[in-house]
Amino acid sequence: MNMAKIIENKTILPEPTIRRLPWYLSYVRMLNNLHVEYVSSTQISKELNVQSSQIAKDLSFLNIRGKTRIGYEVSSLVSELEDFLGFNRHHDAVVIGTGSLGTALMQDHGLENYGLHIVAGFDVREEVIGTRIGGLPVYDINQLADWQKEHNVSIAILTVPVERAQETASLAISSGMTALWNFTPYRIKAPGDVIIANTSIYAHLAIIYNRMHGHEQ
Amino acid sequence: MNMAKIIENKTILPEPTIRRLPWYLSYVRMLNNLHVEYVSSTQISKELNVQSSQIAKDLSFLNIRGKTRIGYEVSSLVSELEDFLGFNRHHDAVVIGTGSLGTALMQDHGLENYGLHIVAGFDVREEVIGTRIGGLPVYDINQLADWQKEHNVSIAILTVPVERAQETASLAISSGMTALWNFTPYRIKAPGDVIIANTSIYAHLAIIYNRMHGHEQ
Repeated sequence: MNMAKIIENKTILPEPTIRRLPWYLSYVRMLNNLHVEYVSSTQISKELNVQSSQIAKDLSFLNIRGKTRIGYEVSSLVSELEDFLGFNRHHDAVVIGTGSLGTALMQDHGLENYGLHIVAGFDVREEVIGTRIGGLPVYDINQLADWQKEHNVSIAILTVPVERAQETASLAISSGMTALWNFTPYRIKAPGDVIIANTSIYAHLAIIYNRMHGHEQ
Repeated sequence: MNMAKIIENKTILPEPTIRRLPWYLSYVRMLNNLHVEYVSSTQISKELNVQSSQIAKDLSFLNIRGKTRIGYEVSSLVSELEDFLGFNRHHDAVVIGTGSLGTALMQDHGLENYGLHIVAGFDVREEVIGTRIGGLPVYDINQLADWQKEHNVSIAILTVPVERAQETASLAISSGMTALWNFTPYRIKAPGDVIIANTSIYAHLAIIYNRMHGHEQ
């Protein structure tokens, strides 16, 4: 798969827009469940505290336009957003590092509602290699490159200890994985055509703590 | 607890700075384990791909200064960052919504290394109320207000279904909780003195998908 070519052919949205789209989706899904037919950007704006001009701009990336004085058709907006965000597609992924967080992700099938199907776990610890977690096999990390030749999975979820983050990322990349979902607080270095999404939950915790206590000099 | 007063007395850092500090921490912890004594901002810059002037600025918030031609003392930097980020303090929290993600967080004790101690779960489902998850009790959400009067926990972790996000947040706030860690993709409305940190893992998934596929018109 040639990422550069795909990037040339497709519209790559700015991250802030992509971050807002799931907010819109969760809101219009709720309206859809309540059988609401139309919603205006003003209404979405009030509910989500995003400027309505911003909403109109974000939604202009989709194949849907609001109608004057009526707004957006809710059910179309739901399916357009789901399609656009890729949540309706099937994506396979592996978990590398089956510690507490990795195990939790393998046991949690909620991500399947968002198109993410974890198919296997990899680890270095003898006591977990060969076992199953959430019904999924756990393999030796040394088997990753060979396993990947047969399975050609694009997404690696990194839930290793922070000191193993870079070497594990490099191994996943050299094995042919093209997208890394990094749950470690380490900033991974990778070639430009590798997709990296950082979900550092510790950073969010630090934000809460700092807002709670501030900094005591 | 009066948040406004605390805000007046303390330095509240900009979010981008707080997001970078855990990167620095994870890197200098690693150096510390390797018994490295000093590190320069240039070295951190190369490793983490952040400009060294930005690093110096971020670290100026801490009670530590780099020495000319030597840099920062690694072990001091580790403990200053840990103190500053609040990871060395004890914070109690409750999980509201013990579905797959909530259960995973209750079973995962990794957050305790970052100062977060989950003490109980709350749910609406009869089949889980009264059980234990990860050794922790699960109570009826209707008991939250009474429970909170005795326990006075500051942090509520919201892992409810998205359509319950706002009502659950409002209940936690009216019960006296002052910080919400929101794992739902819903944008919660709350009074200005309530701390909200959003960890929408679906947004990160959408970023990966969009970078993988772009938008096919």
